[in-house]
Amino acid sequence: SRNIRLAVIPGDGIGVEVVTEGLKVLEAVGTKVETVTYDLGAKRYHRTGETLPDAVLDELRGYDAILLGAIGDPSVPPGILERDLLLRLRFELDHYVNLRPVKLFPGVETPLGKARPEDIDMVVVREGTESLYAGAGGVLRRGTPHEVATQESLNTAFGVERVVRYAFDKALARPRKKLTLVHKTNVLTYAGDLWARTFDRVGLEYPDVQTDYCHVDAASMFFVTQPERFDVIVTDNLFGDIITDIGAAVAGGIGLAASGNINPDRTAPSMFEPVHGSAPDIAGQGKADPTATILSVAMLLDHLGLADEAAKVEQAVADDLVERLTGWTGRTTHEIGDDITARVAG
Amino acid sequence: SRNIRLAVIPGDGIGVEVVTEGLKVLEAVGTKVETVTYDLGAKRYHRTGETLPDAVLDELRGYDAILLGAIGDPSVPPGILERDLLLRLRFELDHYVNLRPVKLFPGVETPLGKARPEDIDMVVVREGTESLYAGAGGVLRRGTPHEVATQESLNTAFGVERVVRYAFDKALARPRKKLTLVHKTNVLTYAGDLWARTFDRVGLEYPDVQTDYCHVDAASMFFVTQPERFDVIVTDNLFGDIITDIGAAVAGGIGLAASGNINPDRTAPSMFEPVHGSAPDIAGQGKADPTATILSVAMLLDHLGLADEAAKVEQAVADDLVERLTGWTGRTTHEIGDDITARVAG
Ligand SMILES: CC(C)[C@H](C(=O)O)[C@@H](O)C(=O)O
Ligand SMILES: CC(C)[C@H](C(=O)O)[C@@H](O)C(=O)O
Repeated sequence: SRNIRLAVIPGDGIGVEVVTEGLKVLEAVGTKVETVTYDLGAKRYHRTGETLPDAVLDELRGYDAILLGAIGDPSVPPGILERDLLLRLRFELDHYVNLRPVKLFPGVETPLGKARPEDIDMVVVREGTESLYAGAGGVLRRGTPHEVATQESLNTAFGVERVVRYAFDKALARPRKKLTLVHKTNVLTYAGDLWARTFDRVGLEYPDVQTDYCHVDAASMFFVTQPERFDVIVTDNLFGDIITDIGAAVAGGIGLAASGNINPDRTAPSMFEPVHGSAPDIAGQGKADPTATILSVAMLLDHLGLADEAAKVEQAVADDLVERLTGWTGRTTHEIGDDITARVAG
Repeated sequence: SRNIRLAVIPGDGIGVEVVTEGLKVLEAVGTKVETVTYDLGAKRYHRTGETLPDAVLDELRGYDAILLGAIGDPSVPPGILERDLLLRLRFELDHYVNLRPVKLFPGVETPLGKARPEDIDMVVVREGTESLYAGAGGVLRRGTPHEVATQESLNTAFGVERVVRYAFDKALARPRKKLTLVHKTNVLTYAGDLWARTFDRVGLEYPDVQTDYCHVDAASMFFVTQPERFDVIVTDNLFGDIITDIGAAVAGGIGLAASGNINPDRTAPSMFEPVHGSAPDIAGQGKADPTATILSVAMLLDHLGLADEAAKVEQAVADDLVERLTGWTGRTTHEIGDDITARVAG
């Protein structure tokens, strides 16, 4: 069978721990995997001042995919690792789709008293390479009473159309075939106009997809009050960041939320990572839930055309989650990884 | 006693219905109120092309306060009424504090299965005159494959400091004395840096206030999973828009969420409005819950120094909400208004 060449970036904090379990599961799938681990993150930054050297970035381009743990540490000023490492990877590798399923697995406790698994089953297609994440902006008279700081959201027809098109395809492939655009067209009138017009125009090519629009504030509310409203969502980078964390919350917590930074044109490797961060407060204690990373591995397999293997991993996770119902708590990161690995192998 | 001169802007959709009830309650309080109603919103726009004529704006400056219902209608392109009427009022009248309590009243059903009233009791101090709401931005090559659309977030030391200071004062006056800054400093590095530095600096003057920081994505999650984390929150205009809708969702719905657009320096009247919109789908049917408007009236009374009257209105609402527990549903907008009015008058 196929040989996967995988770059692994464990990163910071619990990133290291959860990636170990993700790889364990990946190996149990039976596909040949060749991994190379890259030392990037806070430690390297402190040691060498480097975030993502160009040579490393070039090397990363050669892999089939990247598995990333988590990036970020309180010892590094905010923005440095995020902008120069994590976001740089997303931008340079043209991960214009940040794919984030929001799905309540049976057996998983949700903070929403009345939600059932059939109510929470959506996919958020978050744009990954534009808008306020572009890093544009500046500051004048820093530190004085006359300081002005700006941030610019950059949006292009090219960038919006390709992600909107991806989302329509995604919606078409799902049973409900419903796509909701989430934006803030009534305030962000320039960017919103571009998004809304593009959404409407591309939609004409997808008569079988039912479309809807929701302001980001209303959508954030509906995630809590009526999650069943949503099937596939397409949205801007920043709004996607926020609503997928609400999605993670209602679907049982950040420990279960997987994501893929996808380059659909396959001009560079896609990168799979849990939605959670490096969680320095619990790092190194075996307390992190590796499930989000394991589900990200399933997305990785799916992206590489190994749909059966992906389904096997997702089923193993689903079975493990049902077991948790009966009070099977208190397992360490390793133990959860071992249990899911055993299901995949068995 | 004092005579309140109040400008009333019922606006669009259910705005008209809920404002009627709000005024009914206000009159029952016993304070003398002189009201003048301003016809602004979608109907006027269609009739005359006007959103907010300068002469009307000037007149509005002369009142003690403004009560607003809701602005917005699908017959008007997105942004026109929002930008040129609602946001123009907030900006011109220098409503730099958008005050939004998030409070679960006893008896109110929350979608969060386990939350109790003592878990959800916070105040969001949303900045009201800057950031992405400034309307800065532009578009190039509109409608072509080479279109570029920008939105600019404008932030000033002046604007950030005054709202942060207000929030510290607010936190100091509450029993828990905890203030959380919500932003996205790891991505919006210029604006985030200004906010974080200002927050830290002003905080030195408030040694009794416990401070915390939360990225907006994490905060959005915590609103659902750990709302008890928050006491007072201070945040940017856009983030405040989003998190207060999540707040409304967890505290029993948008039908109960009140807000005040406050000019703390009293150089112009403050404006009180429910957080909900004009809800054209249920307009004119007597289905809207006027409670959010009535609670906004309580905030208005409080702002005008009528603390006892404000408390009376809030208590009447609290009592009404407890009654709803026993299945007292199906009341019309008028009936709810009448019932609360009777409690205030009684
Ligand atoms: C760490 C941060 C830059 C990142 C983002 O904002 O995209 C994270 O929140 C995420 O959602 O992956
Ligand atoms: C109608 C809209 C412009 C407004 C806002 O975004 O501020 C509304 O959502 C609100 O929260 O009052």
